[in-house]
Amino acid sequence: MQWHQAHIRLKPRPRGFHLVTSELVAAVPELARFRVGLAHFFIQHTSASLNVNENADPDVRGDLGRWFDRAVPEGASYFHHTAEGSDDMPAHVKSTLLGASITIPIRDGRLALGTWQGIYLGEHRDEGGARTVIITLSGE
Amino acid sequence: MQWHQAHIRLKPRPRGFHLVTSELVAAVPELARFRVGLAHFFIQHTSASLNVNENADPDVRGDLGRWFDRAVPEGASYFHHTAEGSDDMPAHVKSTLLGASITIPIRDGRLALGTWQGIYLGEHRDEGGARTVIITLSGE
Amino acid sequence: MQWHQAHIRLKPRPRGFHLVTSELVAAVPELARFRVGLAHFFIQHTSASLNVNENADPDVRGDLGRWFDRAVPEGASYFHHTAEGSDDMPAHVKSTLLGASITIPIRDGRLALGTWQGIYLGEHRDEGGARTVIITLSGE
Repeated sequence: MQWHQAHIRLKPRPRGFHLVTSELVAAVPELARFRVGLAHFFIQHTSASLNVNENADPDVRGDLGRWFDRAVPEGASYFHHTAEGSDDMPAHVKSTLLGASITIPIRDGRLALGTWQGIYLGEHRDEGGARTVIITLSGE
Repeated sequence: MQWHQAHIRLKPRPRGFHLVTSELVAAVPELARFRVGLAHFFIQHTSASLNVNENADPDVRGDLGRWFDRAVPEGASYFHHTAEGSDDMPAHVKSTLLGASITIPIRDGRLALGTWQGIYLGEHRDEGGARTVIITLSGE
Repeated sequence: MQWHQAHIRLKPRPRGFHLVTSELVAAVPELARFRVGLAHFFIQHTSASLNVNENADPDVRGDLGRWFDRAVPEGASYFHHTAEGSDDMPAHVKSTLLGASITIPIRDGRLALGTWQGIYLGEHRDEGGARTVIITLSGE
């Protein structure tokens, strides 16, 4: 049984969904030592998110972004928290819908993702800057 | 302290929400050996999901399906990823909103679900086929 | 390596989002003993939720509530599960979107939350009553 914790600083990215699987995995070479376990990824921000979805066609990431931009409109009259810009409160709603963390099983030293699964960073601000993710591995 | 990992193949189901608690629990009789711990369920697909909600009235599952079908419309003009059918991109959005995994506490050899809680498979394709779920138990 | 499990009963609150970080942390003084690990919070209800978002401006919580009330309307004609009141089925949808549990990394005896992150109870019923949360700590 072991525990390993690391953090990674993801470079600034534009608003939208970005595939970051290989970047995250590269930050924890210790993953190879776990026969079975869980990998937990936690983003320390309230206007960005992590989720798992399709790793192939980039249109899926674009379509996701377009759906979220329509579902959570900027400048809605019922938003009072507007001092930090019109993209800020929608970003809080989107990150709430998507979540700050994901947990993925580990098997034989690798993430047990399905063939078509990858990890997305959801960047919900126009200029969100760098984002910190804490990675916690546990298992044996 | 122990770890146990198994997988289960859920039979094909129609689009909608399906109560699968007993099927998942039956796949891990080892659960009985854990006094305290966590049970993690991960679906290896990008157009299906797992979540926890009401285990009694089937209308709740029907209503959930109707709400999601309205919130994520098929054939929206802003969806570009359409080659796999009009139900495909909405399925990616729904599985993103709902998530690929759930974690439930273990207490005295059982899932510590509330009285009215059960585990739902969200099948978001019309013909999604069989679905694989990886179950990881940890605890003592 | 250790496991610790506790539960806390949160007092009744009105519909909306409520910051409960300090209440939850106070329920597990054992947190201080973990150098590294994970803290899992699970709400045993199907019309309330837990999530992580902004811990500063209360307008964020108000705006979140207003967005969810518009996204999931009461009295929609496609809701069949209405016997428990017009706020009940929307509460099931909201708790499904938000989730019953969150997992937060532990570092040096504390939750490794970002500067602006706090834990929200989402109370989605008008009179939901007290709510039970199971807290499971693991780590070393």
